[in-house]
Amino acid sequence: MTSAARPGLAGVQALCFDIFGTVVDWRSSIVREGQLLQQRLGLPAQDWGSFADDWRAGYQPAMHEVRTGALPWTDIDGLHRRILDRILARRGLVLAEADAAAFNRVWHRLRPWPDSVAGLYRLKQCFTITSLSNGNVALLVNMARHAGLPWDTVLSAELFQHYKPDPEVYLGAAKLLGLQPAQVMMVAAHPSDLRAAAACGLQTAYVPRPLERGPGGSLETWQEGEFDVVAPDFVALARQLATLQI
Amino acid sequence: MTSAARPGLAGVQALCFDIFGTVVDWRSSIVREGQLLQQRLGLPAQDWGSFADDWRAGYQPAMHEVRTGALPWTDIDGLHRRILDRILARRGLVLAEADAAAFNRVWHRLRPWPDSVAGLYRLKQCFTITSLSNGNVALLVNMARHAGLPWDTVLSAELFQHYKPDPEVYLGAAKLLGLQPAQVMMVAAHPSDLRAAAACGLQTAYVPRPLERGPGGSLETWQEGEFDVVAPDFVALARQLATLQI
Repeated sequence: MTSAARPGLAGVQALCFDIFGTVVDWRSSIVREGQLLQQRLGLPAQDWGSFADDWRAGYQPAMHEVRTGALPWTDIDGLHRRILDRILARRGLVLAEADAAAFNRVWHRLRPWPDSVAGLYRLKQCFTITSLSNGNVALLVNMARHAGLPWDTVLSAELFQHYKPDPEVYLGAAKLLGLQPAQVMMVAAHPSDLRAAAACGLQTAYVPRPLERGPGGSLETWQEGEFDVVAPDFVALARQLATLQI
Repeated sequence: MTSAARPGLAGVQALCFDIFGTVVDWRSSIVREGQLLQQRLGLPAQDWGSFADDWRAGYQPAMHEVRTGALPWTDIDGLHRRILDRILARRGLVLAEADAAAFNRVWHRLRPWPDSVAGLYRLKQCFTITSLSNGNVALLVNMARHAGLPWDTVLSAELFQHYKPDPEVYLGAAKLLGLQPAQVMMVAAHPSDLRAAAACGLQTAYVPRPLERGPGGSLETWQEGEFDVVAPDFVALARQLATLQI
């Protein structure tokens, strides 16, 4: 889907990855740690799947408050904690401060999809690979060490003081990498993220993650041909992109 | 040399590395590429050691111009190119634009000291490891891919729009890593860099590089006991710091 004015897929030098849902499976990671927490602290039994969904659902409205200026710049750790405190209160759960702080950092310990690490190692052979996430730098660095994600560097909305899908994030990433937007490919499981990247001139790769929202979850709709590449996982993405390299 | 108010060396969670001279050997890398360039283009024979020294010598004054506001923010690629053009003119060397641009990027291809890669892999097992360099992000990412430097992330003066030794760089790095300054150790071959880091509350590791300025070069002076750790190379540094970890 490249136009004549763009270098086309063969000009891509760097891949920027959305993280939550694209590289790591936030829902099952939170369910897993929630169950361990429940057992350790003797909490009343919870539906940790809906707990995870509530936590994630609070995320866009919280970022929106930052984007509109209703909240001053607050990093994702801070936003996650605000949302967590509300969910705990709503469910009548009381955690000691140390337990709440440690549970809030589950987002630093999210586990990768089974193909993520293998695919990233293959992609790194041909391309600069970076995160491009609304997660803060410390969260992304800790996650990479925990999950074994071999980033060339960590790029975050925090560096631009703007959250995706603001254009400052996509354009800022290309600038920091010393590249034109068309030399950068955004990889994401979310069509809305890819559309915002494409509007800034980035190339796009769609990797659907049908399990992101659990067994009964649904995917955002998208049009055939809307993205430059569509791949079922990162290993397949590496295979597809390798055929474009010299 | 830790005071009672600091967590001490056992509290260190991240190591930030100076790059030029500390991790990579800029002088011999430039001599090597200069000789290859001379041969390829049939240039008059040059003393590439003094060429490299001149290039590096222009660096502090150029950053000073940015620091004082005489120049607007200019990244290191831009500063290196300004200096290179002056050296070429002074030596009566004329390069095609593409050759000058490619040679300017020798700073993206600097070669590591022999112990750097092995030492970084060992240090990464226990600590978050990052660059903390006046080099721009693109330069540092390209260098890491070229030299095989396994950073957890790339941190650069560019992210703070201040050059070392301005405190914004050291304090900004700790903040992005989500750490207190005393939980971060600056590793450098230059006492001046370490003193500025220590003034911001960072821990310090001095790794002298006696060959940085060539066979006849001299080291900056320093006092015994001035730095928290002194090690002859990165492998020895890893061994020393490992004894402090639980």
